[in-house]
Amino acid sequence: MAVTMGDPAGIGPEIIAKAFRDAPEAMRGCFVAGDLATLRRAAALVTGDGVALPVAAIEQPADALRAPPRCVPVLQVVDAPPAPVPLGLVSALGGKLAGDAVFWAARAALRGDIAALVTAPLHKEALAAAGDPYARYPGHTELLQAVAAEHLGKPVSEVPVRMMLANDELRTVLVSIHVSLRQAIDRVTPENILQTLRITHHSVGLALQKAPRIAVAGLNPHAGEGGLFGSEEADAIAPAIRQARAEGIDAHGPLAPDTVFMRARGFAEFDVVVAMYHDQGLIPVKYLGVEQGVNVTLGLPLVRTSPDHGTAFDIAGRGVADASSLVAATRMARQLSK
Amino acid sequence: MAVTMGDPAGIGPEIIAKAFRDAPEAMRGCFVAGDLATLRRAAALVTGDGVALPVAAIEQPADALRAPPRCVPVLQVVDAPPAPVPLGLVSALGGKLAGDAVFWAARAALRGDIAALVTAPLHKEALAAAGDPYARYPGHTELLQAVAAEHLGKPVSEVPVRMMLANDELRTVLVSIHVSLRQAIDRVTPENILQTLRITHHSVGLALQKAPRIAVAGLNPHAGEGGLFGSEEADAIAPAIRQARAEGIDAHGPLAPDTVFMRARGFAEFDVVVAMYHDQGLIPVKYLGVEQGVNVTLGLPLVRTSPDHGTAFDIAGRGVADASSLVAATRMARQLSK
Repeated sequence: MAVTMGDPAGIGPEIIAKAFRDAPEAMRGCFVAGDLATLRRAAALVTGDGVALPVAAIEQPADALRAPPRCVPVLQVVDAPPAPVPLGLVSALGGKLAGDAVFWAARAALRGDIAALVTAPLHKEALAAAGDPYARYPGHTELLQAVAAEHLGKPVSEVPVRMMLANDELRTVLVSIHVSLRQAIDRVTPENILQTLRITHHSVGLALQKAPRIAVAGLNPHAGEGGLFGSEEADAIAPAIRQARAEGIDAHGPLAPDTVFMRARGFAEFDVVVAMYHDQGLIPVKYLGVEQGVNVTLGLPLVRTSPDHGTAFDIAGRGVADASSLVAATRMARQLSK
Repeated sequence: MAVTMGDPAGIGPEIIAKAFRDAPEAMRGCFVAGDLATLRRAAALVTGDGVALPVAAIEQPADALRAPPRCVPVLQVVDAPPAPVPLGLVSALGGKLAGDAVFWAARAALRGDIAALVTAPLHKEALAAAGDPYARYPGHTELLQAVAAEHLGKPVSEVPVRMMLANDELRTVLVSIHVSLRQAIDRVTPENILQTLRITHHSVGLALQKAPRIAVAGLNPHAGEGGLFGSEEADAIAPAIRQARAEGIDAHGPLAPDTVFMRARGFAEFDVVVAMYHDQGLIPVKYLGVEQGVNVTLGLPLVRTSPDHGTAFDIAGRGVADASSLVAATRMARQLSK
């Protein structure tokens, strides 16, 4: 499995080094897709016991399997930068290096050279500053979708993806992500919800090895209270659930948004909640802390997970960033790629 | 303080009886505004140790101060029903009795005869079935607002109220409540947000005896990400915050909705979060369980709190309903009416 290094100016490289240092069993067989010098700098930041964390250049993915524990195997998949990327600053070079690592890893996964990719955070503004083709993509998900579509010879619209956020006690899959709330409401259509249910049923089913119990949140307060506060439940959500159930998908709802996450907590009543918009799902997943949150892209012909946080430029280079979410993302990727 | 009995067909009367039985210190000086026979039936349901929980008719609110602990003082403020209201069923009579108790208690509070009211749950459909004037009000809040406006000789529009949900670790005040999500977005205006901030500053400040640190959530994912995902943050929320700060209100934001509640958890960074719509605020308050949640109506010239759950017709009459939220609501009312 490849761990893409993320933006060299952010906390990505140092949390990767920390993960190899502190969770060797989780990182077994993984390697960093990125830049050797960037990882050496990061390893120096997180050196423990006065002994430098070793960083080893590898020649091909399979070499990672032979790396000793607590050694960071790095495959140089990007052009080595002429000078170190300054920490904590948005730069076109940082965006380009981060993007190139993801392009490489996505293609390697699609070729079958690696089992999964775990992506350390990149910075949207740096990606935009890096110009074409990087600037075309608001983030990892869209970039991966484009690469997958190219690989499959299909238009991007025929490679629908969904974002899942998961932690130890809750999984949620989002009908839409990075659009305004008004646009998110426009996307609450029977087609989009049914597609989300199919992707959720398939992908979460693979991970759990059984048909998941899927809760479907309403859009409006009290799931519309029988039509008093909005009609999307009757017009879009309920029809999609009916169709999904006819296809053998164990979908329930639409359920009141303010209590459905409580009901799904600890997987008590449901294995996963389909949320109608970004914050509906992310508020409960993040409420108890972001350290354990994992982001999973569902629907792609490859396995991709990532930590549920950003580049944290404000603390980059200090060695204080928490690697828990990256470690959790790596464990999740292993589970999903079995 | 008066506790209105709620719909006689629901769990209201029995959780009131339980609260007097199990939390006598919290209920000290409280009485039930309602119907004596209904409370006797409820007390019989929750009788502990084989000894019937005593229910005493009182003649005036002050008599409650002389009631012994674990006795339920009831002031008959509604016409006694000809027969017991059937449990677990929507009825016009149930709606009327519940509504009459609230009308009485609101007027008593506005006259200064009682210090606060705690309202047990009523059922919206029963209220609607009871016809005019009950059917005019979707719930407690609107009914209380109308009574207060009448008392003040103002139109209802000049008695703006806001709903606050609070538990042991989070307080949130909502810009809008029972409207569709589309309508809620339309209500994200500088005026509505500024009004919410003023009410929050005043009311939460009274309870805390200091100016509260107010977090203001954005509307869109990542609070709009600098305008990429919606313009309401720049057009409405930020201007309202600027004006509020100019008035001495300690308001911060707009902050990313998916992490602001985590940041306010345990009152770590903020005393209260202003949420832009119903579920944005209620999902995190309810996520850890509804037992401790308290609903407070801010902006009225009276103190009103209520448990954060409904009539639960499905379990009414079994004596199994949890009184924790009602007890928490009573404690909160006492704190606010000091």
